[in-house]
Amino acid sequence: MKNLKGAALLGQSGGPTSVINSSAAGVFLEALKQENITDVYGAVHGIKGVLHEEFYDIRQEDVEELKLLKNTPSSAIGSVRYKLADPKKDDTDYKRLLEVFKKYNIRYFFYNGGNDSMDTCNKISKFFKKSGYDCNVMGVPKTIDNDLNITDHSPGFASAAKYVATSFMELYLDATVYAIPQITIVEVMGRNAGWLTAASALASYKGQGPDLIYVPEVAFDLEEFFEDVKRILKEKGKVLVAVSEGIKNAKGQYIAETLQELKTDAFGHAQLGGTAAVLATEVSNRINVKVRAIEFSLLQRSAAHLASKVDVEEAFKAGQKAVKAAVRGTTDKMVGFERVSSNPYKIKYKLISLKKAANEEQKLPLEWIKPRGQGFTQEFIDYALPLIQGESKAKLVDGLPRFAKLKKIRVQKK
Amino acid sequence: MKNLKGAALLGQSGGPTSVINSSAAGVFLEALKQENITDVYGAVHGIKGVLHEEFYDIRQEDVEELKLLKNTPSSAIGSVRYKLADPKKDDTDYKRLLEVFKKYNIRYFFYNGGNDSMDTCNKISKFFKKSGYDCNVMGVPKTIDNDLNITDHSPGFASAAKYVATSFMELYLDATVYAIPQITIVEVMGRNAGWLTAASALASYKGQGPDLIYVPEVAFDLEEFFEDVKRILKEKGKVLVAVSEGIKNAKGQYIAETLQELKTDAFGHAQLGGTAAVLATEVSNRINVKVRAIEFSLLQRSAAHLASKVDVEEAFKAGQKAVKAAVRGTTDKMVGFERVSSNPYKIKYKLISLKKAANEEQKLPLEWIKPRGQGFTQEFIDYALPLIQGESKAKLVDGLPRFAKLKKIRVQKK
Repeated sequence: MKNLKGAALLGQSGGPTSVINSSAAGVFLEALKQENITDVYGAVHGIKGVLHEEFYDIRQEDVEELKLLKNTPSSAIGSVRYKLADPKKDDTDYKRLLEVFKKYNIRYFFYNGGNDSMDTCNKISKFFKKSGYDCNVMGVPKTIDNDLNITDHSPGFASAAKYVATSFMELYLDATVYAIPQITIVEVMGRNAGWLTAASALASYKGQGPDLIYVPEVAFDLEEFFEDVKRILKEKGKVLVAVSEGIKNAKGQYIAETLQELKTDAFGHAQLGGTAAVLATEVSNRINVKVRAIEFSLLQRSAAHLASKVDVEEAFKAGQKAVKAAVRGTTDKMVGFERVSSNPYKIKYKLISLKKAANEEQKLPLEWIKPRGQGFTQEFIDYALPLIQGESKAKLVDGLPRFAKLKKIRVQKK
Repeated sequence: MKNLKGAALLGQSGGPTSVINSSAAGVFLEALKQENITDVYGAVHGIKGVLHEEFYDIRQEDVEELKLLKNTPSSAIGSVRYKLADPKKDDTDYKRLLEVFKKYNIRYFFYNGGNDSMDTCNKISKFFKKSGYDCNVMGVPKTIDNDLNITDHSPGFASAAKYVATSFMELYLDATVYAIPQITIVEVMGRNAGWLTAASALASYKGQGPDLIYVPEVAFDLEEFFEDVKRILKEKGKVLVAVSEGIKNAKGQYIAETLQELKTDAFGHAQLGGTAAVLATEVSNRINVKVRAIEFSLLQRSAAHLASKVDVEEAFKAGQKAVKAAVRGTTDKMVGFERVSSNPYKIKYKLISLKKAANEEQKLPLEWIKPRGQGFTQEFIDYALPLIQGESKAKLVDGLPRFAKLKKIRVQKK
């Protein structure tokens, strides 16, 4: 839909990353330049903010602060986990969204998130089209899990991967300090896709990483695990283990499931965590040495001080390109990456239909995974290493990062 | 004892820090320059390595790798937690040490550690003197806990403090992302002294830090804690809490103690951990909102990528100055810092008797601690802020730190 004139709206969705705000900076700064975009709004806590007519007026922000968003972690305008119903079953939310979009003449909608958010985006886009409301809807990818479909990778993954690899190198040195046998089990986020846990293999590639790495793509066998831990303990005196929160047994049950009550989030996903702790307890019961469980927890998705420059720049450009494409008339697409070459690293941006991008998880290729937790093939290293290159972080003031501070002035409700 | 000619030996002791190897670099590089120092040895796992005649031959290392130690976290030559007996009760170890020192003609002994290590150092020094063996014994301070006596601060604290403050700023942004009430409890290391937990106040000083901070110096009242958490939750919808692992109730019992079995380490210290988890469970039982516990765990003492330049440089100089002082004839002293001014930051190095430095814990001044977990006075900010200035970290290769890789060639046993 070309030459649409109206407001642009950005929503941030799902779990934050170190660079989701870099995409926001890309969207905002580009939207502010576009003649056809009359106003620039930020949805207060994603799609829920839209339903409640709660918007920040981005035109009232200082451009310098918006630029600082590039290196500010977390979701500056607030995020949400809210699943829209299937419009065929219940179109209440969609009708309300249409009403709000019309009322504020929102003609450009950008939604920055993972699989579920692209699904949301897709449903909204289709509903608007069916309703005859002209609005260009664009998805901007974001996920530390790297499980968005079709795109080579997603913004957020690389910085989290850099955090994981760097932290494993440091932990490796720490965990080998005493002349006593020791087992350290470190839990990395990742419910169904093991990309981020696999990033620990970059540390092993540098000779300072985990001995064993377990991802959800491969069934986890507790007995084999004990065998392998015991063998390495005998050989080296220390064992460093990387484990995805979402590892499952051969029956597909989460390993953490047996020992804790599971909660589910708004999307019906099991809320995991504690996998390392559960495993550490099991190991302690079987092997009489010092065992420690460490969880990277929220640190892995918010450590902007360790962001990859490649990631920060790509996240920004993905936002920028979404706006440019929308203004050119593109709708119903997500900005994605296609890898041209790994060495030297070169990507090209592409537009992927929202339907294809949404709701199918891109998992680690099984042929990249070595058997029995022994890490990953060179293909994975070649894939991941270019992504974590370079540094881009907030300027330090008093030795501490100067993150963006937005005024967050609300748009008056109409 | 001047003009002693013989070998120099360095031992690393206790928990690692981001900069303990910077002190090692200072000792090694300076010792290699000194004419009176015939050989330079590194004890394999501290005092235990000495007892077992296990030394690395530092002369065989590449000087360039030794320089990389400045930015390599953890204890490169291995550490130990081993408490020497009171020599009046059992002098077996001391006699053995004397035998080993004589056999290898070790005339300069440097021990890099915290309170217990300075106590070890002091006992060895006194025993050698009593036995008529000339050896200059110097302590080099190291502790993320910052609890060494008399010195203004200790190497290792500042880098851990920078990690804590930076991570709290990032977590603050992450923890406020959703429009749902949320309580996040973050545990920081510190058994009896709250310096490192207090460093979270630097984040609050920047407007992006914890709402409540609890340190071991002040009795922790569970009821007051619940009251304050509820009040802040009502006001802000989110509560971010910093808590020392070693917080105690009015009876002096560790808060974590009531819900877990305590183990003790070789020094008879209680092995804590899980304080945040225990508190989170308690809060969950009383307040029906999302509660998350995060432990910085080993990350806070090994995150060399976030080291403070001030700290790295001071750690290096402390090692260097220990060697220079020993060669000049000083013995039985620890290198310490005296603050000349905070703004601009200026310190002078001083020599503190090992006896005074050892075994008395320097705690947070009570007058710097605001009541009911409300943080710290400006005095603490003025004290801590200059320490976390500047960056000094390992060169990146492939986007990952290039840490020192020592050859670790053993000295042949005599």
